[in-house]
Amino acid sequence: MRLSQEQVRTFRTQGFLVLEQLFGPEETEAFQEAFRRDSLIPGEHRVIERDSGDVRAVYASHERQPEFAALVRAPRVLGPVRQLLGSDAYVYQFKTNAKAPFAGAGWSWHQDFVAWQLADNLQLPRLVNVGVFLDDVNEFNGPVIFCPGSHRDGLVKKGRGAGQAASEQHIDPDDIALTATDMTGLVNRHGMVSAKGSAGTVVLFDPEIVHGSAPNMAPFRRRLLIMTYNDVANVPRPLGEPRPAYVVGRDTRPLEPVDEPIVPALEVVA
Amino acid sequence: MRLSQEQVRTFRTQGFLVLEQLFGPEETEAFQEAFRRDSLIPGEHRVIERDSGDVRAVYASHERQPEFAALVRAPRVLGPVRQLLGSDAYVYQFKTNAKAPFAGAGWSWHQDFVAWQLADNLQLPRLVNVGVFLDDVNEFNGPVIFCPGSHRDGLVKKGRGAGQAASEQHIDPDDIALTATDMTGLVNRHGMVSAKGSAGTVVLFDPEIVHGSAPNMAPFRRRLLIMTYNDVANVPRPLGEPRPAYVVGRDTRPLEPVDEPIVPALEVVA
Repeated sequence: MRLSQEQVRTFRTQGFLVLEQLFGPEETEAFQEAFRRDSLIPGEHRVIERDSGDVRAVYASHERQPEFAALVRAPRVLGPVRQLLGSDAYVYQFKTNAKAPFAGAGWSWHQDFVAWQLADNLQLPRLVNVGVFLDDVNEFNGPVIFCPGSHRDGLVKKGRGAGQAASEQHIDPDDIALTATDMTGLVNRHGMVSAKGSAGTVVLFDPEIVHGSAPNMAPFRRRLLIMTYNDVANVPRPLGEPRPAYVVGRDTRPLEPVDEPIVPALEVVA
Repeated sequence: MRLSQEQVRTFRTQGFLVLEQLFGPEETEAFQEAFRRDSLIPGEHRVIERDSGDVRAVYASHERQPEFAALVRAPRVLGPVRQLLGSDAYVYQFKTNAKAPFAGAGWSWHQDFVAWQLADNLQLPRLVNVGVFLDDVNEFNGPVIFCPGSHRDGLVKKGRGAGQAASEQHIDPDDIALTATDMTGLVNRHGMVSAKGSAGTVVLFDPEIVHGSAPNMAPFRRRLLIMTYNDVANVPRPLGEPRPAYVVGRDTRPLEPVDEPIVPALEVVA
């Protein structure tokens, strides 16, 4: 799959692009089921919500679940990613944020690339985030909110010294949060737009776009899968111990698109 | 002013009714300025945000600021209130919630009448809330979220024993918060709708409607003025010490509509 010129222009200008229901209901259900399975596997790749004990995030599920292994190579995803990067790509990070009902806290305003620069000494923002909605996302369950166009300003601030954070497992967005003063200027210039849509919708977004999200006010959880692809020429050069492989992928070989069904069972059923 | 039959039906069915820009820009600016003035007056009627030190709420401003004294008697407000109650009314509570940028916390899901029953031993839900937007309200700055029609189920739970809370200054919605289990049923039955609109917009809402609001994700504050009118025949009968007069009004005489300009200066300017 290739994006239209108009879609590429939107991505370049706004810093994000919504592809409504890129995945159908059966595929989305397969992802939900795969995430449920993966959430049961104990280990460090599973992050537990501080207060409630609910699963807040799971990393690297594409290494354990066949549906997600197919997803990272799906032409619908890898096509646009390689088109936008203009290069070969590999999976830098794969995670699912499961924002629990009520307890699911919001994320402060931040720019992803600050974290990756700090933690992994990544040189260039040659990455594309691909968010896949595993649940319907509306204004009530904590959608991601973007400042459209803010990626074109580059990094608002560099954050802490790189060496300081190099050994951390993952960076908490609160550590790199933009201040009210930063945000007043940004919102005055760029405004705010939230990415909403049915389950199966995909949002591509730039690693430098300013974004955050509100807590989940709804009594239903909101699961958002995020795959971050990196240019194969832009590999991390950590100053200290590299972050764990489940957080930052070490297989930096170019991914080839593989057009196989996300839901193998569908073939059997059909 | 009287509501149309359609508007009355909406209020009865949904439990709330939005009146877009009931107040014009000059009037809204006058309210903003009156609130600014009133926020500077120290005293117990002023509630300070725990973390930031910002003003979170101010009570009983209609007793100190002429614009708000005019507002509580304005036919545009008092007309619909008396129409909906079918009785004479007085100001039970007058407050402005100034949800600060970022720091402005959300309110848990709750029903107002539970609090008033507990704190003031109020017998019947014969009240109408009138919310006046002092700022534009959008999905980002913590709009009030309603479960439409939930008021028709009555109270989900009675909360703590009435005697226990009778001496408290004001009830924290967290104390009467509905649980995730309560809310799952309510949202499945009624859904969620947020009240958004330009500054000057008014939302009338029922004292038993289930509502909450998210934190303010925007770098601008969101000020919401709420006047609660009570049927003059439904006066509080506190079991212990009554709450302070700035929280629960003691002048229970019927208010008469007075059709005078909210902004006296406008006459001079004109």
